[in-house]
Amino acid sequence: MKPKYLYAALFVSASSWMASASVATPEAAQPDLEKTYADAARRIRETALRERGAWDKLEILCDDIGHRFSGSPQLEQAAAWAAKTLRADGHENVRLERVMVPKWVRGRESLEMVAPRSATMSLLGLGGSIGTPAEGITASVLVVKGKKELLAAGDKARGRIVLFNNAMPPYDPEKGSGYGTAVRFRHKGAALAAAQGAVACLVRSVTARSLRSPHTGAMSYDNVVSRIPAAAVTIEDAEMIARLAARGHNVRLTLKMQARDEGLVPSSNVLGELRGSSLPEEFVVIGGHLDSWDVGQGAHDDGAGCVMAMEALTVLRKLNLRPRRTIRVVLWVNEENGLAGGKQYAKEHAEEKHVAAIESDSGGFHPRGYSLECKDKARQDAAVRQLEAMTALLAPLGATRVVAGHSGADVSPLKDSGAVLMGLDVEGSKYFDYHHTHADTLDKVDPQELQECVAAMATVAYIIADMPEPLGR
Amino acid sequence: MKPKYLYAALFVSASSWMASASVATPEAAQPDLEKTYADAARRIRETALRERGAWDKLEILCDDIGHRFSGSPQLEQAAAWAAKTLRADGHENVRLERVMVPKWVRGRESLEMVAPRSATMSLLGLGGSIGTPAEGITASVLVVKGKKELLAAGDKARGRIVLFNNAMPPYDPEKGSGYGTAVRFRHKGAALAAAQGAVACLVRSVTARSLRSPHTGAMSYDNVVSRIPAAAVTIEDAEMIARLAARGHNVRLTLKMQARDEGLVPSSNVLGELRGSSLPEEFVVIGGHLDSWDVGQGAHDDGAGCVMAMEALTVLRKLNLRPRRTIRVVLWVNEENGLAGGKQYAKEHAEEKHVAAIESDSGGFHPRGYSLECKDKARQDAAVRQLEAMTALLAPLGATRVVAGHSGADVSPLKDSGAVLMGLDVEGSKYFDYHHTHADTLDKVDPQELQECVAAMATVAYIIADMPEPLGR
Repeated sequence: MKPKYLYAALFVSASSWMASASVATPEAAQPDLEKTYADAARRIRETALRERGAWDKLEILCDDIGHRFSGSPQLEQAAAWAAKTLRADGHENVRLERVMVPKWVRGRESLEMVAPRSATMSLLGLGGSIGTPAEGITASVLVVKGKKELLAAGDKARGRIVLFNNAMPPYDPEKGSGYGTAVRFRHKGAALAAAQGAVACLVRSVTARSLRSPHTGAMSYDNVVSRIPAAAVTIEDAEMIARLAARGHNVRLTLKMQARDEGLVPSSNVLGELRGSSLPEEFVVIGGHLDSWDVGQGAHDDGAGCVMAMEALTVLRKLNLRPRRTIRVVLWVNEENGLAGGKQYAKEHAEEKHVAAIESDSGGFHPRGYSLECKDKARQDAAVRQLEAMTALLAPLGATRVVAGHSGADVSPLKDSGAVLMGLDVEGSKYFDYHHTHADTLDKVDPQELQECVAAMATVAYIIADMPEPLGR
Repeated sequence: MKPKYLYAALFVSASSWMASASVATPEAAQPDLEKTYADAARRIRETALRERGAWDKLEILCDDIGHRFSGSPQLEQAAAWAAKTLRADGHENVRLERVMVPKWVRGRESLEMVAPRSATMSLLGLGGSIGTPAEGITASVLVVKGKKELLAAGDKARGRIVLFNNAMPPYDPEKGSGYGTAVRFRHKGAALAAAQGAVACLVRSVTARSLRSPHTGAMSYDNVVSRIPAAAVTIEDAEMIARLAARGHNVRLTLKMQARDEGLVPSSNVLGELRGSSLPEEFVVIGGHLDSWDVGQGAHDDGAGCVMAMEALTVLRKLNLRPRRTIRVVLWVNEENGLAGGKQYAKEHAEEKHVAAIESDSGGFHPRGYSLECKDKARQDAAVRQLEAMTALLAPLGATRVVAGHSGADVSPLKDSGAVLMGLDVEGSKYFDYHHTHADTLDKVDPQELQECVAAMATVAYIIADMPEPLGR
């Protein structure tokens, strides 16, 4: 998923969140870091851009293993492969750390329009949803744009399938994707609709572009009593249902879902290290999440984040760039539907000194810079200035943007550790076209852009791990 | 389909065809036509752009009826609806003309990768393909880019499923879509592969953009002996199979298709007229094809062409613009997999004097002008000059381009009638993203652009029908 937007949506409105994010000014740059690490940055960049190590790893992850949903055998294969690969690349302290993850099983699912005519629709049940009875749920549809229309409809939702036909705007280079606002009904739509007496909930897929493409994602219920099945439909089908309803048709659908919760099962975060030369017990974490949804290949979300962290460590090791502090790759599990890996890591490693934790979970696109946040605002401000000096070294990649105010989902449980939490910021115009779909596949990843991400991550991780004082001090 | 590219591909190489098309120069324009019809053109344009009649018709066709494959009840519903709508709009001589069309039935179909790992793939069987045995065909894959690689592989195709992984280039505003070249293996791949001993044929979908989107389309066999099942796979799956094979994996697939030929069944072309005031037995035909593939809604292909012709006639009638000659709307059937409607119309109406036949089958996008061709080259040249004068009146729409050398599939059987054959030329960057897929749906059509097409078609049809001499004389 793209947690920064998601969390923004859950806790504050996206617009107020956008306003609270600040782009730091270049005046604050610190030339010393830039000068000290210019040579290392050049070597890292040249090596990363010359090679295709991240792509080669991603090819195995996507093609030989495939999607890696929490609770699936593929996720365990991926963890074993990642550990083996980290060891083969010569890294230290490679290990699996056990995490209990939820096992939600999609089963077969279908959506048929039965009136005013017969038609088969594309759907993806939402992760966490309950299933339907075997014969399905057949009911008339109430189409609403959002909560306000739902509440205004009063009793009309009773006994109906509620369709939230809420459109995500086209990507805007200034404002971003609008995902944070659009995703609300995927998360909470079923609870809202159930409270009004609905028998099932459909959500227009959270995307601005579609070729009849359903997008799955996590949902949650308010309480046990009001659980109704929830699924995503395509823009195309949502619009058709809305048009038919607007012309007075009674649109009736049959939804069948075998979705079920099979409880908790064991899985693992994967760790590997480049041990620090003089401060090995201070850690800079880099990573992504190893799990994906149960469709597509999880190439951008978040195979790319995993392999770029793995490869960043490998590039540093090849160049004999051993920093003062330890750089630790962490590949978290269960980011998509529970965040069990991120939480477990923070809990188990609470006693360790984390200087920074850098996550990549926005795809393997051309890097633009970094986002960051820190509980201690003075430290955050100082970190912004230092990051600007570091990212000045990424100017040949065009990755000089530093934005304060957010980071990523898997590092977020570390916020009380005092670490500076960071997210790799990448070009975002296409991410949500593929996000949580059958189409998040390796062909969407550009090998060169992925290696640019490796360079951006290795450079910044190395400098943070090697600079004399901890980041933000 | 997009017949001009298809036919180019079948008979000449696309590049030589592109070179033979000529864009006529503006010096040749004829100011008389421009002056005579300036007022009519303005009134047509203003009326068409103020209204949404074509969109309203397309909404019924797409949403209330849906896709309309030859042999389906929906195609017959569409014909009945079109006739009723033409009558309701006050048109003359509205009638159905019987055409026997092939009934090919897709049935259930599936494609599973069984080695090196298990995975479900998206597919669409190709129209005209035979099915597989009930247990499916399981075989190893031979990946080739085209015929040359297939032949070079010699015996390696024997007993295998051949995958033609031939990429269509991204759309180029100068060169167009590259469809004509890319579509070859969809048409002839099964025959080529069968000749080498293959047991089934898969073709990379003919598109440059995909969100795991299979594109169907027509195919044909060389002879009865060498028939093997043929289906389209997505770019994503074709690329994955090719990558796995390139790394030495033995990729094995199970293809199941229930596809079957159910012979010929009755259907109908739909006709309606605005009778000419003084030369009613001379005809200017305008139209599109009423049938679609059995997926999506056939919105751009070619619901748009049908409704723009219907609405063009209605706009002229509303404005009391009755030309000298008769303008006849023809909605052909079975363009997609046989051209039975186009052939039948030409045969049944061979004795009538057709001055021009204008087809729209490239979608309801922003109009750019017209293509045209005529067996008599002197007449074609004269027609180009006259068309330039007419399309000068379409300058407010930006539809002034006149290209000689091709027209459209449904009008092509009229070539011996002496008529000037024409095609509405529209902005083409997105057409093949949707073409023959689940995603060719109404939301992809812009109501304003569709009405621009109505204006472009009504203006040119009116002038050709009203000018003193027949077009090109």
